Amino acid sequence: MENLTVIKVGGKVVEDENSLQKLLADFNAIKGLKVLIHGGGNIDTALADKMGLQVEMVNGRRVTSAEMLNIVVMVYGGLVNKKVVAGLQALGCNALGLTGADLNIIRAVKRPVKEVDYGFVGDVISVNTDALAKLLSHGFIPVIAPLTHDLNGQMLNTNADDITNAVAKALSRHFQVKLVFCFDKKGVLKNVNDEKSLISKITKDEFINLANKQVINAGMIPKLENGFASLESGVKQVFITDVNGIGKENPGGTELVK
Amino acid sequence: MENLTVIKVGGKVVEDENSLQKLLADFNAIKGLKVLIHGGGNIDTALADKMGLQVEMVNGRRVTSAEMLNIVVMVYGGLVNKKVVAGLQALGCNALGLTGADLNIIRAVKRPVKEVDYGFVGDVISVNTDALAKLLSHGFIPVIAPLTHDLNGQMLNTNADDITNAVAKALSRHFQVKLVFCFDKKGVLKNVNDEKSLISKITKDEFINLANKQVINAGMIPKLENGFASLESGVKQVFITDVNGIGKENPGGTELVK
Repeated sequence: MENLTVIKVGGKVVEDENSLQKLLADFNAIKGLKVLIHGGGNIDTALADKMGLQVEMVNGRRVTSAEMLNIVVMVYGGLVNKKVVAGLQALGCNALGLTGADLNIIRAVKRPVKEVDYGFVGDVISVNTDALAKLLSHGFIPVIAPLTHDLNGQMLNTNADDITNAVAKALSRHFQVKLVFCFDKKGVLKNVNDEKSLISKITKDEFINLANKQVINAGMIPKLENGFASLESGVKQVFITDVNGIGKENPGGTELVK
Repeated sequence: MENLTVIKVGGKVVEDENSLQKLLADFNAIKGLKVLIHGGGNIDTALADKMGLQVEMVNGRRVTSAEMLNIVVMVYGGLVNKKVVAGLQALGCNALGLTGADLNIIRAVKRPVKEVDYGFVGDVISVNTDALAKLLSHGFIPVIAPLTHDLNGQMLNTNADDITNAVAKALSRHFQVKLVFCFDKKGVLKNVNDEKSLISKITKDEFINLANKQVINAGMIPKLENGFASLESGVKQVFITDVNGIGKENPGGTELVK
């Protein structure tokens, strides 16, 4: 099976012009097949503010109203996605921007209402691996925005980490997938304020143990759980690191190992 | 050569929920290879208003400032394009949303400043026919927003009719192209207020003659000039009609003939 690298970057990286240019150059430097998945950042909130639209919160959780959905579709699927695509094309990287609706790449279901009605938020149910493989076979480089659809005409706001895991797992049936989550820390830290406390390799048992002892920051737990789930579902390598890891053969940071 | 239909619709058709649903059903009914190109409509102006941004005018011509470019990228490339793509997917039509930046489908140059500085407006210079043909070979249906890029990382606001002509001409090297421009009249009318005055077929000589006599409405002249240019460049059939022509073997309206 051919090697394929899946890179996830947060929206903040894309918002700042300097970090965006570094991201584009580093992503362009990755050899072989690759997929980029980007988050949304805070432009959507800024735009909502400008339009006098308040971000709805229920029980401290952010809710995607119909108006807010329009904004995230515009910002993630339009502004951010095309900035990345045009930037990569300028470097000679044949990028193709996608949302889950395009070629039905990622189908989701509107999150069922239980305690909280999250509004137009999608939980991923399937990835169109066949279409992605066809695009990749032509050297086309998918750049995926954190948006899905329900195959009934409804776009849905969707967590970029969830999309990343679903895409990486699906592609691991056709490719040897290396998955790199980039965020604002060097990797998983024993002490969140000390980058020297980086854990360079972690097994699931070690993770559970450190999580139980509350050594690992609570915010990291879903990322690690998702990462281990990917590893168990056929993804060959999973790294959690900062943007300096992009484009390197060994991304550094924390490698999740079996 | 295989047959291929290129449909151009204005943004207004996409904005109204009823006309959008009709468009999606009619476009879905077209047999064989097809491409949809949509205009922007007025959502961008409405959004600019909401954000307190004035649409800049110079000598009575609309100008695309940097802020306005962000809005059109969001609205045309995000909101409108994804509404159409998700709607077509719901009908089982395997749509793929594209701007000119995606796969470098349409490269343009920022319009040179002469009497008027139009800002971030693009004049089309090339179409990536090879990439479009690859997409079409898989049964993927391109849905193109009126945006291009300069291959130096800059997105550009671009006239949808110009994009349509460039795409139809480029594809006519690989396919027998039928080009259908849909607008708000039944076709070319001798009397703009009387749909019964429809001209069902028109040659270039007849067009020049009627234009000189000011029988044809001034607003129609660029459409017809572009249409005849397409016909002379290898496009097999060109029609100018309203949305009722979509999905019909003979779209009706006015056919441009040699």
